[in-house]
Order: sequence, then C-alpha cells, then structure tokens
Amino acid sequence: MDARTYIAEHRGEFVAELREWLAIPSVSADPAHHGDVRRSAEWLARHLAAVGFAIVEIWETDGMPAVFAEWPAADPDAPTVVVYGHHDVQPADPAESWQTDPFDPVERGDRLIGRGASDDKGQVLFHSLGVRAGLAASGAAAPPVTLKLLVEGEEESGSPNFAGLLERYRDRLACDIVVISDTTMWAADTPSMCVGMRGMTDCRIDLYGPEVDLHSGSFGGAVPNPARAMADLLSDMHDAGGRVAVPGFYDDVAEISTEERELLAKLPFDEAEWLRTASSTATAGETGYSTLERIWVRPTAEINGMWSGHTGAGTKTIVPRSAHAKVSFRLVPDQEPLRIQERVRDYVEAALPEGVRADVRFSGPGVRACASDITSPAVRAARSAMGRAFGTEVLFTREGGSGPEADIADILDAPLVFVAVGLDDDRIHAPNEKVEIPLLLKGAESAAHLWEELAAALRC
Amino acid sequence: MDARTYIAEHRGEFVAELREWLAIPSVSADPAHHGDVRRSAEWLARHLAAVGFAIVEIWETDGMPAVFAEWPAADPDAPTVVVYGHHDVQPADPAESWQTDPFDPVERGDRLIGRGASDDKGQVLFHSLGVRAGLAASGAAAPPVTLKLLVEGEEESGSPNFAGLLERYRDRLACDIVVISDTTMWAADTPSMCVGMRGMTDCRIDLYGPEVDLHSGSFGGAVPNPARAMADLLSDMHDAGGRVAVPGFYDDVAEISTEERELLAKLPFDEAEWLRTASSTATAGETGYSTLERIWVRPTAEINGMWSGHTGAGTKTIVPRSAHAKVSFRLVPDQEPLRIQERVRDYVEAALPEGVRADVRFSGPGVRACASDITSPAVRAARSAMGRAFGTEVLFTREGGSGPEADIADILDAPLVFVAVGLDDDRIHAPNEKVEIPLLLKGAESAAHLWEELAAALRC
Repeated sequence: MDARTYIAEHRGEFVAELREWLAIPSVSADPAHHGDVRRSAEWLARHLAAVGFAIVEIWETDGMPAVFAEWPAADPDAPTVVVYGHHDVQPADPAESWQTDPFDPVERGDRLIGRGASDDKGQVLFHSLGVRAGLAASGAAAPPVTLKLLVEGEEESGSPNFAGLLERYRDRLACDIVVISDTTMWAADTPSMCVGMRGMTDCRIDLYGPEVDLHSGSFGGAVPNPARAMADLLSDMHDAGGRVAVPGFYDDVAEISTEERELLAKLPFDEAEWLRTASSTATAGETGYSTLERIWVRPTAEINGMWSGHTGAGTKTIVPRSAHAKVSFRLVPDQEPLRIQERVRDYVEAALPEGVRADVRFSGPGVRACASDITSPAVRAARSAMGRAFGTEVLFTREGGSGPEADIADILDAPLVFVAVGLDDDRIHAPNEKVEIPLLLKGAESAAHLWEELAAALRC
Repeated sequence: MDARTYIAEHRGEFVAELREWLAIPSVSADPAHHGDVRRSAEWLARHLAAVGFAIVEIWETDGMPAVFAEWPAADPDAPTVVVYGHHDVQPADPAESWQTDPFDPVERGDRLIGRGASDDKGQVLFHSLGVRAGLAASGAAAPPVTLKLLVEGEEESGSPNFAGLLERYRDRLACDIVVISDTTMWAADTPSMCVGMRGMTDCRIDLYGPEVDLHSGSFGGAVPNPARAMADLLSDMHDAGGRVAVPGFYDDVAEISTEERELLAKLPFDEAEWLRTASSTATAGETGYSTLERIWVRPTAEINGMWSGHTGAGTKTIVPRSAHAKVSFRLVPDQEPLRIQERVRDYVEAALPEGVRADVRFSGPGVRACASDITSPAVRAARSAMGRAFGTEVLFTREGGSGPEADIADILDAPLVFVAVGLDDDRIHAPNEKVEIPLLLKGAESAAHLWEELAAALRC
C-alpha cells in the first residue's frame, strides 16, 4: 500500500487522535494549566509508544516537560534525524472572540478549529502518521533513518529551559540533521520550505551633552545638542541607497545565490496586498532588492524608539541634556551578532561631536541568523519529499523574524531543514486558530517520503 | 550742584525709599499677594507724585494694575520718552533658601538684599532719583524731554494684559523712544547696553508612516520608518558648517555690522567660564562666528524634544508608526516669524520620503527679534549718558533669549533703547536676590544725563 493510500485510509483515526490531544489545554504560560501541559506530554508519550517508537521518555525541566521518542533504524549506519516541535499552546484569550470552544475542537469541512491545531500539535502529529505510512509503503519494521522526536513544552513561554535541555541531552540527541516542523508554507497551493530566518541584536544608545537642560535662548546655537547628535547619528546610519552605513556591517553578509533568488522570484507575491497588510502606502528599503529579499535575506538597522528632552504639552525651549534611541539590527548569514555589536559601538563613537558622550548597551548576545544551504543533500531530499507529496514544485521562503532555531543547530551541531505545512492565515496566537486537514495529510505524506529521501541523500 | 553730587547726597534717602517699596511683597503670580501688588502700585504712584510728576495714574487691567506717570517738558517740541519697567516681583520660594527675609530688605555693605531689588523695583526707582538729579544739575523745573513712566504689574506672570494696555493707551503713550530698564550689564566694571534680543518661533512636527506599529522582523527593511524619516529631517536641518539648511532661512538675516562686531569682541568674555556655566565640555555652532555671536546675533534651529515608538524598558522590535519632534527657531533681525514658519513647512514637506506624511504645528505667531541701531541718535545718546556716569567706554551686548520688547516697539511705533544696571549674578528669580547700590546710583546718574543727551540728539 503506498503512503498516500495509507494516509487517506487513516484520516479519520488521525483527526480523532488530534482532537483528543487538542482537547488538553496545554497552555504553558498559565500556571493554572501546568497540569494540562503535563497531561499533554503524557498523552503524546502514550501515543508515540503505541505507534511503535522503541524509546519514549518524558524529559523533565525546571519548567514544563518535553517528550523524547526514538525509533532506531534497522541499519546501524543509517543517518539520524531529530524532529523538533512543541506540545504546549498559546493562551486562548480573549475567550469571547472564539466562535467555538478553543479546547473542544470542531471539524468544519476540511478545517479543524481549536487552539494548537496548527501551532504545533497538528504539525507534530503528522509525523506519527507519516512514519507509519512510510513503513506501510516499504513493508519494513523500522524507518530508514534513526528517528528522534523532541517535543518541548515551553515554546510558547519563550523556551526558558530548552537550551539547557539540549545541552544536557546532547549525546542522546546526536544527529545528522534537524527537521523543524513549526512554521508555514507560502500558500495552500504553493508548497514551500523555509530555508532561513534573520538573526537580531538590539541596543539602547544614550547620548549625553551638557549636564543640565539649557535655556535655548541663552545657550542655543553655541553648545552641542545631543538630540541633534542623535538625529545625525541615526540619519547617517543609512546611505542614500538604503544600505546600513555602519562601517563593516556587510563584511560577512552571504549574498543570496542566483538559484535561490530565482526561486524566491517565482513566489506569487502580490505587493499591493502586502502593503495593505503592512498598512503602509509605500515600500522602502535597500536599492537593488525586492520587497521579499529586503525582509528575508538583507540585514537592517531599524529605529524602534527614540526620546529626548521635552515630550509633553506646550513649549519648552531647551537644549536637552540627553537623547536616547533603541535600535535593532536584523542579521543574515554569516553576520555574527557580537561582531556587529562591536561595529555599532565603533560607529557611534566615531559619530560623536565634541562635547557629547555615548553609552551603548546591547540587550544581550543577540541571535544569529540561520539558513539552510539549498544545494545541500538534506534540503534537496526534503524538497523532493514534499514535491512528491504535493505533486508540484516546492519553492523556498525565509522568515524575516528571528527565533532560537540557530541555537538548536548550534548545540546539536547539525543543519536545519524546515518541513511544515501551516499557513499564514491559520490564526496561530489568535482566536479561532485552525488547520487545513488536507495540508496536515500532505505533511504526513511528506514525512513518509522524507526519511527515505534523506537516508538516500545522506548516504551518498 | 552736579548730578553726581546730588545723587551721593541723596543715597540714604533713595535706599530708604527702595527698602520701603521692597517690603511690599508684590508677587503677581500668587493670588494671595494680589492686594500687595495693588499696594505696590499705590506706593509708587504716591512716590512719583511727591517727586514731581505732573500726571500720576493707576491703570487698571483685567489683572494687576500698572502705574503711569508723566512729567511734561517745558518745551512743547521736546521729544517724548516712555520708560518701561515693572513693579511686580517673582515669588520668594523656596523660602528656606533665603538667608534673610525676602521682604525685609537688608543692606550688607554696598548690597541691598531682597526680592525685587534688581528685578525690577531698584531699576525703576533709579529713574525717579535720576530725574531729580538732572533737574538739580540744570536748575530747570521740568526735564528736557517729556518723560512718561509705564510700570506694569504683571511682568512676572507673563504680561497677559500688557499688549491690551498698550493698545488702549496708545495715544497717551505716544513717544519718540522707549527706554527699557529691566535687563543687565556685562559686569560691574564693564558697563554695557543691550542692543538686541533674538526672536523665536517653535513648532511640533509629527510624522506618520504605516498605520500601526509593525513587527521589525516581518516588515523591517521594506517599509518606511517614520523615526528614521524624522532623524533624516532633523539631521539635514543643519549643514556641515552648522548653518540652518532650511532653504531661505537666512534670506532676511541682517548681518551684524563691523562696528558692533568689533565692540562685541571687546567684551572680556571668558569662554572657559562660560562653558562651566553651560555645564558643557565643548562649544559648537555656526562656523565663522564667536560664541557670543552665535547666541546673540545668529539664528538657530534647536531640537527641544523628540519621541517615537518604544521608549520603555526592554526590547520591542517594531517599526514605529509615528515620530514626533519639538523644534524651536531663534530669530534675528529682520527674520519674520511667519515667513520662517512657511519656510519650515516647505522644508518638512520636501523632506518626506514616500509613505510618510507630516503635520507641522507652530505654537503661535512667534516673537520677532528686536535690535537697536547702534548708529542711531538714541543709542548714541544713551551710550554717551552711561559713559558720563560710569567714566568708561560703554560696550554693547545682546540677549540670546526672546521677550515681548519687540511688541512694545511695535505698538508704540518707537525704537527701543535698553538702559539698565542689573548684573547676571543678581540672582533675579532665585533666592537671595540682591542689587549693587553703587550701580543703581550710576543708573540714576545715567538717567540724569540721558534726557539731556536724548533731547539734544533727537532734535538734530
């Protein structure tokens, strides 16, 4: 029986299992639901054991538990894969905005409505259906790769204990590749793989001039004004072409490949619709790059906030003593956040006029960008698996935002592949979250092919 | 008897009169003292009538009363002078910072300590001693000019009813020259006349981009950021030489004359001391001008405040929807505030990137700069009168700040001359206000000569 047939025959059972799991309100951010998060982990552990995973463990943390499951390949030389997902969910408030009970999932046509349907229980569960479908198709007793699932319970609370968990179980999690199933595709009729996320580092810049606010009549025009120094500094941070003018900022930027650029251009991007979403009347940005390239593959410097002097009602004619700004930098491969921080410090120092001093404080070490090499065997294998499932060309996307994914790749020392079937309109983190059941089944079919494709690709 | 001898012989009487007047706590800003402001007006009216002014009237306003006194010249063709001063005083708080009772004036050596001693009762009263000294010296029964005193009672409360008073009594106040006795000299050993004050107009600039704050990961780098547009706009408002880069800003600026520039350069200006006062470690400003020129005779654009986006604790990676700034412009002759407002509006409009719109609101019509022509007969006469009293060259200063003086000149259609003997360290508006009695006597002697010099000068 081929994988698609197996999956079609098990649709009812799959949806019933998912509904059962979704009915457990595993809201990690709400202490009142911490018992439910544990019940959710226990449900998943029982489920995976029943499916046939040889090892199933609940891994405790200082917070909510994760679930680990392993199904060793028959061949000891087969590659090892870690699949990452999470079993906790966002809070459901505002409750009154839900048209159905968020924790009593409802099927409406091809949709399943309930908290966690897309983010991320539905996407975790398609892996259990997928591995069974793969075995049904191959007739084997074990998958062609050693499959390890790691499903954490605190993702919606910022994963405070996750890096520690990875460090602690580094040996148990040893792998050749990490598959992330917690993102979206371009559209239901445009299957795609995310192949990168931007990194980020952000700082607060404080400029200090005269020690007190000065009367702008008595002193204005003859002393340095830190607000003006800040305006100069922030203005000069970009050149006329919209590039970040911090010296050395682009030194380590990996240019997007021609192949990826061509594939990005194939995405059916509607700029007018995008502008409506942005509630903006115009695009802006770095010359020579499209809107999608600007948000996905190019680094930025963005003023998130600034303040100085008199901000209240009425007139106060002062030369303010200080000026402040919050600036964040989205990073792309291979920019190192700590190196960028040094560049920014140097830039600020060099920009200071006489009589103005600066304090630059970064909020932390920053987050590195991550990207999958689209020519790598793993990405090719995953693209091929999804292509077989969807029956059409799989395109590439990236994410402009930043997440902890680079840390997973780092700690486990393995490249990332994103295989996911959520949609941007799934209303994750919002009321009335839903998932498209046919896409979850395509996800399962992709997973069924994925281990076979990966085993072949990584053995070469 | 010459004026100096007369004044020396009447020192005790003068100080006694001033102490009596200073004992009336005429704090116009405090309703509890409004009765005292009226008592102060009545004291002054009685005093001026006793001195010999032919007409003495208390002029009511919607607030506190002013005192008007007139002493006509014998010669009906003699010029007419209005002397402006005020009889209300600043509040005395914080009371605990006074070493003596602010309303029980104390003589300490050559100083008289009490609220209003310098600002402005002492400076009003030297005119009554001056006119008597002038008459004693000339033997005449009336001064050589028609002398009108206008002493308002709300100056320390922002003169809310003063323009109306001037309009109402425009005919009674008709004059050839206005003498202002409410400012300071450079130093006790450097007598000087103020010959100009900067004007001012100020605005709030609001820039609006996308309709909502946007996620800087999802949108950053591809939409216009109004905070960056504001930084650009504020930064480009000055050129590299520190000149205001608003097109047309300098069109009507009257350059300082070589003569005035040379006289300003004669002032014993200690830049290191000035920097200590400014609590700044460096000067800044327009290339080609000295610090005094920058604050006195050159116009400025000054950022008084700005704000945008996230200004609280922590990180919030947004593209803010709006950015705001408060900017004031100090003006010099012959810049018209309303014309400058148009220039600034045009500048902002031209500076907007696509997708950002602006709202520019000025707080009011602005205040014009005022300046006395240092080659005019009136300034020459006043300089000569002060020179005779002080026995040394009288230099020129200006004020960087802005006041309603231009309005007086405007409404009365007469040029201004500043004759005053306060010092910057008189602690006006602060605890322990004092005045140097010898300087008040020099002020009286200057006034004694002034009417004679002015009568001669204005008749030519």
